[in-house]
Amino acid sequence: METWDAIRARRDVRAFDSRPIAGDDLDRILEAGRRAPSALNRQPWDFVAVTEPERLRALSEASKGAGHVASSAATIAILGLVPEDDRQVRLVNFDLGQAVLSMMLAAADLGIGSGHSSVNDQTLPRRLLGYPEDRFCAHLLPLGYPADRPLVPLKRPDRRAFDDVVHRERW
Amino acid sequence: METWDAIRARRDVRAFDSRPIAGDDLDRILEAGRRAPSALNRQPWDFVAVTEPERLRALSEASKGAGHVASSAATIAILGLVPEDDRQVRLVNFDLGQAVLSMMLAAADLGIGSGHSSVNDQTLPRRLLGYPEDRFCAHLLPLGYPADRPLVPLKRPDRRAFDDVVHRERW
Repeated sequence: METWDAIRARRDVRAFDSRPIAGDDLDRILEAGRRAPSALNRQPWDFVAVTEPERLRALSEASKGAGHVASSAATIAILGLVPEDDRQVRLVNFDLGQAVLSMMLAAADLGIGSGHSSVNDQTLPRRLLGYPEDRFCAHLLPLGYPADRPLVPLKRPDRRAFDDVVHRERW
Repeated sequence: METWDAIRARRDVRAFDSRPIAGDDLDRILEAGRRAPSALNRQPWDFVAVTEPERLRALSEASKGAGHVASSAATIAILGLVPEDDRQVRLVNFDLGQAVLSMMLAAADLGIGSGHSSVNDQTLPRRLLGYPEDRFCAHLLPLGYPADRPLVPLKRPDRRAFDDVVHRERW
């Protein structure tokens, strides 16, 4: 898919059909995350790709917005390095956002929908995924083919108006 | 450009040639940011597109990594809503990361390079750009055609190995 089409076709998908995601496609999505930029190229992330139905079901309890993890074909847990100070909190989360958007566009390019959900309490995800104390699970990124309709460029996305968001030369 | 090519062609560009960016292209890059997802669709961002050479020169003093703003064809100042609490700090910065990556890929798709730089001290950017107290400038995103060579997919990006970053089912 053309880049501009993928950017306009990506939308929040939280209902998936039962088609699995091919291994090569999942790896391409993960590779898109690996290639994302980060402050000082620190790459403060790890990705846990979950496809086992039982583990997906258990992981869907990790936060109240993560119910659709259970019916996803795969879910990528986005782990970040626990930040050392306030500045690192900002930078690590910014970098995780870059990695996730990169993965979502790589998925959209393949016709695969995604709808991520943030995670607060680490207890359950840490128990299920076994990541060390210096990492935290920031988001879950469920993936799958949309149950409703294929991904096509959206003409009128539900967003603030362009002229409200964009300022010229100064505010 | 195909999405997968744009994802692999995006790289940190900090030296630009003197070609301007067409107005439609700059607007497309901004539109890619406007379309990014955000927590609860809050869209906690504003974008100030700067193209005046004098303002770019002045803005390049905003942080020590922003020198290349001066020679950029355009720089987008990424403003965020000042977060109310620690959770919002994480979410707002994550969302800004999503918006910026979306813009960088839209730029790469057009052959336009980008190399963003984070901003701490708000004094100078606030004076130059005039944004209100409830906004902060998180990053500057300088844009321009690369001075060295066109953007093409990178075979060996400078990143941690795939198997180091990616975990299967659990850590």
